Amino acid sequence: MRGRAVVLRERPLPGRTVAECLEVVDCAVPDCPPGGVVIATELLSCDPYQRLRMVDTYDLGAAVPARAVGRVVASRDSRLQVGDRVWGVLSWATHVAADPASLHPVDPADGPASHAITVRGMPGLTAYVGMVELGRPAAGQTVVVSGAARAVGSIAGQLAALAGACVVGIVGSATKARLLVDDLGFHAAVRHDGPVPLDEALAAATPGGIDVAFENVGGRVLDASLRRLASGARVVLCGMVAGYDGTGRDARVEQLMRLCGAGATMHGLNAPAHAHRLDEIGARLGGLVRDGRLRFHEDVVDGIDRLPAAYAEMLAGGSVGKRLVRVAG
Amino acid sequence: MRGRAVVLRERPLPGRTVAECLEVVDCAVPDCPPGGVVIATELLSCDPYQRLRMVDTYDLGAAVPARAVGRVVASRDSRLQVGDRVWGVLSWATHVAADPASLHPVDPADGPASHAITVRGMPGLTAYVGMVELGRPAAGQTVVVSGAARAVGSIAGQLAALAGACVVGIVGSATKARLLVDDLGFHAAVRHDGPVPLDEALAAATPGGIDVAFENVGGRVLDASLRRLASGARVVLCGMVAGYDGTGRDARVEQLMRLCGAGATMHGLNAPAHAHRLDEIGARLGGLVRDGRLRFHEDVVDGIDRLPAAYAEMLAGGSVGKRLVRVAG
Repeated sequence: MRGRAVVLRERPLPGRTVAECLEVVDCAVPDCPPGGVVIATELLSCDPYQRLRMVDTYDLGAAVPARAVGRVVASRDSRLQVGDRVWGVLSWATHVAADPASLHPVDPADGPASHAITVRGMPGLTAYVGMVELGRPAAGQTVVVSGAARAVGSIAGQLAALAGACVVGIVGSATKARLLVDDLGFHAAVRHDGPVPLDEALAAATPGGIDVAFENVGGRVLDASLRRLASGARVVLCGMVAGYDGTGRDARVEQLMRLCGAGATMHGLNAPAHAHRLDEIGARLGGLVRDGRLRFHEDVVDGIDRLPAAYAEMLAGGSVGKRLVRVAG
Repeated sequence: MRGRAVVLRERPLPGRTVAECLEVVDCAVPDCPPGGVVIATELLSCDPYQRLRMVDTYDLGAAVPARAVGRVVASRDSRLQVGDRVWGVLSWATHVAADPASLHPVDPADGPASHAITVRGMPGLTAYVGMVELGRPAAGQTVVVSGAARAVGSIAGQLAALAGACVVGIVGSATKARLLVDDLGFHAAVRHDGPVPLDEALAAATPGGIDVAFENVGGRVLDASLRRLASGARVVLCGMVAGYDGTGRDARVEQLMRLCGAGATMHGLNAPAHAHRLDEIGARLGGLVRDGRLRFHEDVVDGIDRLPAAYAEMLAGGSVGKRLVRVAG
């Protein structure tokens, strides 16, 4: 008996499209390994994150790893019987040998089997952690979700609406825009490629600015949201799918994906917003200086006529500590 | 009597250097306004943020606004006497008319007068809020500060060391590197343009990765820190001075400065790190689906042979909800 699999033939490096790099091939159905099982897959998941791992993680010539739902067709483990339905990280293949410890039962009481790899699975978890735990939208706040008709975005937006926020989705077609508002409970939808320029459409939909931006798309869509951030906003960087395939990938994608890989947080520091605390903080720092625990260098240039050159030099890194200009000189 | 001022002659748009756009001119000493004072400036502050405001905020043809220390030389207000020393947001000029309400006394007991606009002033406040309140370094953590020999960076690094962190500074010269370690209590210094490539030098200085990155420089220096982030790291984006003048300014600077302007936070979401919570969160979302409070669309393509095209289409935004491939079909 033969099966089929989708293998990674070449790495889709920046500038290449994924379709050029995948190949569907005939392959043998694997034998059941000792203590293992063979799964005949039924539903294969297609997720944007796989595109990133094709570049540097997945094995060339092998079926692409993917979450999947399937049925046990051979078992050498007492926990799983032929006919049991399971899900797990398998691969884009019709038949996959697996370790029973890596598989999860699919309970018909939990709804359609597909839900194990969709709304109850990683897309749901991603939306929940990102929106509820990182975005933390409050009643009355304005939330923008890009890629809002996608799996994660559609859940994230609905979770924000359930929290009482006003939710605006960014999508790529009129059909998707209608779906968000008519079916998914979004308050508004704007198109990133619609007849109205995105900046204008987003401004109209978010008159008080954006309190939470849940980003799935990146590039100019992210830029548009960043231009509308309200004071103290939270940006949840979930993905930048516009930059994954073909020519979309650039240095900004690489840079910001580092934050995702580390689960890191980037705080934009708006120092002027804290200026009212200058007396308090200045006194604290002055105390450290007086006690010899904090040292500070000043780099003084004499003469206001030399200020332009001294200023340019400071910008270029040619000063040490604080560049000041002494007027009389 | 005549004074001198540094005026903004042209806007230093991206690609231009600031030195081309400033001019030192003779000007009249202002008359003392009703209820106001005239300050003869002594020390003028040179700050990177001014470069940004020259592009879109400061008035053309006027002296550039700047914090300064000076003495009152004319007063029509009972609170300030001729000879009093003050600081405030004045301008790059020898003589400035000012509203007494905008000025702050300089107390000789607080140390050198310059400290009012350096370590006790906005550079100190910026370093304190950024490092202590946003970076929150803990004992034993690794902190990297770029632009570490600059005003803000030198304070930020010392505050992290006082909190018990291991502090690594990134600087542009061997002289600055020595200053950090010999005089400012940094544990190590690496050069972004030294004989050892930055990535290599930074890896050697941060073997366990970076827990807190305090960024003043941007561009490839920021990239190097992002590549070393430890799990759960915090990046404090204070400035990106390498991108302010001349040809350094690019889309990434524009993008990330939006976070600073709004005092916003960007969370990188690492969903796989939360995968152990799938049962808990999946059950919660499944409950919402069952109760009709959460809707979810699946977009199923039949046949594994169609998977490559279906996957590429999903990346490009051509699906709605979750793209799945049904194997039999």
